[in-house]
Parts: sequence; C-alpha cells; structure tokens
Amino acid sequence: MTSEKETGALDAISVPTMLLDEAQTRRNIARMAAKARTSRVRFRPHFKTHQSAQIGDWFRDEGVQAITVSSVRMAEYFAANGWQDITIAFPANVREMAAINRLAAQVRLHLLVESVATVTLLAARLTAPVGVWIEADTGYARSGVRWDDAAALHELAGVIGASNHLSLQGILTHAGQTYGARAPAAIAVLYNETVTRLAHMRAWLSEHGWQGLEISIGDTPACSILDDFSAVDEIRPGNFVFYDLMQMQIGACAADEVAMVVACPVVAQYPARCEVILYGGAVHLSKDFLTRPDGTPTFGQLVKLTATGWGAPIEGAWVRSLSQEHGIVRAEPAAYATTLGPIQVGDLLGVIPVHSCLTADLLKQYYTLDGALIHMAPIPE
Amino acid sequence: MTSEKETGALDAISVPTMLLDEAQTRRNIARMAAKARTSRVRFRPHFKTHQSAQIGDWFRDEGVQAITVSSVRMAEYFAANGWQDITIAFPANVREMAAINRLAAQVRLHLLVESVATVTLLAARLTAPVGVWIEADTGYARSGVRWDDAAALHELAGVIGASNHLSLQGILTHAGQTYGARAPAAIAVLYNETVTRLAHMRAWLSEHGWQGLEISIGDTPACSILDDFSAVDEIRPGNFVFYDLMQMQIGACAADEVAMVVACPVVAQYPARCEVILYGGAVHLSKDFLTRPDGTPTFGQLVKLTATGWGAPIEGAWVRSLSQEHGIVRAEPAAYATTLGPIQVGDLLGVIPVHSCLTADLLKQYYTLDGALIHMAPIPE
Repeated sequence: MTSEKETGALDAISVPTMLLDEAQTRRNIARMAAKARTSRVRFRPHFKTHQSAQIGDWFRDEGVQAITVSSVRMAEYFAANGWQDITIAFPANVREMAAINRLAAQVRLHLLVESVATVTLLAARLTAPVGVWIEADTGYARSGVRWDDAAALHELAGVIGASNHLSLQGILTHAGQTYGARAPAAIAVLYNETVTRLAHMRAWLSEHGWQGLEISIGDTPACSILDDFSAVDEIRPGNFVFYDLMQMQIGACAADEVAMVVACPVVAQYPARCEVILYGGAVHLSKDFLTRPDGTPTFGQLVKLTATGWGAPIEGAWVRSLSQEHGIVRAEPAAYATTLGPIQVGDLLGVIPVHSCLTADLLKQYYTLDGALIHMAPIPE
Repeated sequence: MTSEKETGALDAISVPTMLLDEAQTRRNIARMAAKARTSRVRFRPHFKTHQSAQIGDWFRDEGVQAITVSSVRMAEYFAANGWQDITIAFPANVREMAAINRLAAQVRLHLLVESVATVTLLAARLTAPVGVWIEADTGYARSGVRWDDAAALHELAGVIGASNHLSLQGILTHAGQTYGARAPAAIAVLYNETVTRLAHMRAWLSEHGWQGLEISIGDTPACSILDDFSAVDEIRPGNFVFYDLMQMQIGACAADEVAMVVACPVVAQYPARCEVILYGGAVHLSKDFLTRPDGTPTFGQLVKLTATGWGAPIEGAWVRSLSQEHGIVRAEPAAYATTLGPIQVGDLLGVIPVHSCLTADLLKQYYTLDGALIHMAPIPE
C-alpha cells in the first residue's frame, strides 16, 4: 500500500498521531536539568507542554521535584500522580476556590497573584496555606504588576502580608517577549532586561521589609540559549521538552532537537499545483502559524518518517493551510519533484508542528518510536 | 464574589465552558430543514460542528435521516448512536480500511474519492458496498477533481464503474470560497458559479453513460443566505447549527442567531491599558482569528452573560490575543469605561468564538442555559 517500507510502529498508524522520540525528549530534559544544576537554581519545569504523568516521570529521573502547570485541573492531575510541589502559573482564578483548597491541603501549592482584588478574595476563602508569587509584567504586557509600578507592588505585598494563609515567595514572570526575537543576542538582551527589572522589584520590596524573596523566570527561548541563570532562583521552561517549528525559527533549538512530530496520512496529491493533502488539520495541529519570508503563513514543517524516527526538514515544502481535518502541503516545483512527488496516497508524512504545546493538547496521546502508547491527562467529566 | 447577580447555572461555572442556547440551536436547525424541504433537496447536515449524539437528536426531530461527518471515528460514533446513512466528507483515507469495512457492513456509507489511486485501493480492499461521490474542486483549490478536467473525470468514473463494491452516487463539493465573501450578492454569485460547474460535470458524465447522478453542496454561507437549492440534490451545511463570529462577519447570520458562546472567568484587569484577562485561551477557543478593520486580529467577540443567556455583542471590545490559557481582551477607552470597567475579577464574560467548530472540538462538552450537560463524542482510547 505504501511506497516506502514502514516499520511496524508506523504500519499501525491510520490517523494523525503524535510520534515521540523518547531518547531526544530525555536529552532535552537532561540538558535543561544540567543547566539549572550548574547555575544552582531550582528547575521547576512547566508541564503544560506534555501534560503526561509518564513523561513527568522522565523529569523525576533527572531529580526534578517541583513543577509548574497552567491550570487547576492540571495541578490536580499531577498531584494525583505524586507531585508534591506545584505552581499554577496563571493568575489565580477565584471561581475555583473549592479545588484550590483541596489542592492546598494536599500539596505544597503556589499561586500567582497580581491584584489586591484577587488577594483579598483568596485571603477570605483559603482554608489551607499557599505560597504566592507576585506576577510581574517586565514588558510582555499580558498579565502581572508592571515592574515599575512601585505603588501597586507596595499595596499588593501589604495585603499578602496581612493574610494568614498566603505566604509571599517571590516575584515571577513569563518574559514572552523573547518569542518575538530571532537572534540569540536579542534573547540575551531581553533576558538581562527582564532580570534587571525583577531584581529592581525585589530590591524595592527588600527595602520595605520583605527578605528572602526569590525570582522565577520561565521562557524556553532564554532558557535554551543562555547558560548562566545565577541571577535568578528558579527557571520554569516547558516547551523545550519537545521544541517545535517556532523554537527553530527563534533559534532556540536545532531541527534535530525537536522530539515530537505528527504522522499524517497522505489522502490526495495535486502535482499540477505541487500540493498534497494530509489527513491532519486544525483539530490536530492547531491553527498557530509562522510567517514565511514571502509573507505567507506556514502551519508546519514536513519531514520524512523513517524506520528509526524522522529525517531532516524537507526544504521547499510547507503546510500552507489547515481546514478542520485537511492539511494542505505546498512545495516549490523542484522540491515537489524530488520529495513529495514520489509520495503516494496512503503513505505517511511527518509534520513538525508550529507550537508543540497546542498540538499535544489537541492530540492527547503519544506513540513512541517503538509503538508504545503514552497517555496524557484525561478530559474531565 | 461577583459584581452582577448570576443565575444558578452560571454560578456553577469555574472554568471556560461552552454555553448552548438550545432554543436558538433548534431554530437554526428548523430553519435550514425547512429550506431544504421547500427546495425539495436532501438535508444531510454536517455533524462535525457539534459532534454530539444528543444534539443529533434535535436534527431527528426535524426529520433528518442522513448526515455528514469529517472522519471515520465520527462516523463510528454516530453509527453507534443509530444513524444509518452517513457520508464521510473527507478524501477517503485508505489507512483506515478496517474501520471503513466495519462501517460499510453496518450502515449506508458514502465516501469521497478524487483519484484513481484511492479508488483502486478501495476497490481492492472493500468487503462491503459503499456509495462514492466524486469530490469536485469548483474553485476552492483544496481537494477534489478540477471541474474542468474532463480527462481526469472520465478516468475516475471508469475505475469506479469497474468496481464491485463502489457505487457512484454523484458529484460533491465544498465551495469554501464563500468564506472569503463579505456580501450576500457575492455569495450568490459564487453559489451559482459552483452549481453551474457541478452541472457541467454531471452533464459530461451523463453523455458518457452515467445517469441519475446527484449534486451535493455544503457551505454554511451559501446555505444560510440563499433560499432556492432546486439546482442541487443535497445540501450539507454544518456550522449553521451554532454559527459564530466568522459567519457574522461574512453576513451569513445575525448576532442573535449565534447559539453558542464560551463563558470565561475574568482573572485580571488592567484599566491603564483598557484590558482584562480571561481564563480562556488557545486550548479553549482555538487560534482561528479574523482581521479587524485596523488590520489587527480578533480571536472573539465579547458578550455579557445574563440570567437567560447573553446580550448583544459589546461594541468596541475584542479578544486581541490568545496564549495557551489566557485570553487578552482589549477595549476602546469609552467601551472599557462603560462595559468592561465595572467587571470584577471572578465575574464571567461570554466570548462568541471566531470558529465554533474548532471551539466545540476543543471544549468537548456543552452546558445548556438550564445548566444541563451535553456530551460530545469521547476521545478514542
């Protein structure tokens, strides 16, 4: 049925399927853990990327004991799988107080706060102790106290200090502005700027009596490109576990460090327009995209699947568009002739997704290169 | 905790949740079913939008007996829920032959074909009869035989005719080009062009001995705006069941015809930049976006939730950006002062999603305005 010999594991694939290179995933984890050890900072990896207890165990193998998640549900899932020190890196959602209280009684729970309104509600309704981090906006302009708003910082720390159940741990930021950078030097500049701003906040709180506060940063670009994190106390990268096309474009990883691709069946071919149609659409890959040099979008990078994994990116071919289930792959004529043309209906192609966190969240389970199934957090009822 | 009195159903919401207006959903279904009856065409609604057996029953109440789905898995789910006449409106995926054969033995199954390669593989491996539709590309340039490629059409029909298990039903298209239109007159032009091209293909096949072939079309914009479908035999719209912001922008529906919004907790407020942060991100709404008049994207339209559903769109406010879990809402200063400013952390805001099919696929379950839970097809193990 297929034009190339497939391994047993690929033979079993009939629908869009995440293929996970366990060895590369473990290398990515080990490298980041080693960096944290060398810098003597806490490695609190963000588990929102993989969302899997089994992959979480691979972090345990590297000595990781503290984790980051992006929702209360994810915290519940990992708490149920034995994790005892969990930061929910999202502005505390006071509508989930019942679940937060259950978690706070069970594990060492850390919440993010950035407003007096939220702290006041937490203080009134918490029934168990939690650590809190003041979320700082160091320039990304998403959520957090602006780094230069001393009045807001002062007021917030005061309300936290007046509460029985809230214990201020430090200042935390997600410096998402590094995702807009496209050169290691630019990422280093943004990292130094972020750390300087966080240190300024810590110094200001120290002058007002808050001692021993920590600084936590977390973006994969900076954590991948830089090596010395001694200016902070904790790093929380997540995406690095798999990497993806976005991190390749940023320069945070090489193509051979990407540890996950989506295997997609080829369902149609259009040589006249140098296109093939994949079974693999928005509900599998997500509609996140990057912009190509010609200004058009790409929704993924093609690779050939092999008996032992996958090959280098196919130059001159890209996923130009996604419908709900269709992935439309276009190639330059020369690339089509040499790489996509020989493909047949019924073959598989691999896609490096633009954003592995969103792709993993959509596909919910992984197959290793040996064909083993790895589950993710179940959908709650 | 909240600044406005909430109903019991809203009180129970703590995370991003699809709210379904059952009465409006049923009106949308009834209106489309009536149009089909008036035009004397088969109504074969696309169930990929709602993916729910329970909502499928609301179509049964309108006399619907034949349905469209976008995957083999979805066909299996609806077959298990009693549907006996199912078209999988996606190029037949020959890697799923085992499941296709099981389905073909169980229900009246229709597949889409557009290449000799696929038909040859199907003919060799089918063990039960299926109806097949030649997928036509009438200008959308996604999948299908080009409407003007007589040689390809001839060859394909010949291979279908030589097979024991394949029975040619007609010609089918998804005229997705209507999604680019922004005026009813433009959609009418595209519809007429599509029908003319399909009729040309049918006439050409008729001249070569194929009698009684049907024509099937399916896009929600044309099916919503036009009333007379007597030139075709079957309509397959799907999105109209809920509609969304994209259909509003196209002009295919009014705001009060949208039957689903996502209720999102407010977790942070930034009056200085006229923004609030919602718990509701890319993993809830999808990253599909529309372009605003100023060239910036919108990922959703805000509405206020009420005791009986939701109000009109909040003018001058929009979801400007989505992270994995964050929705960043921006408003013009006047709109912020009057509508978003009074909102408090812990309140809910409603979001009309850009693309309801993708949002429903992400959130997996609905709550009606009475607080009843409606399930969707389960994730396969």
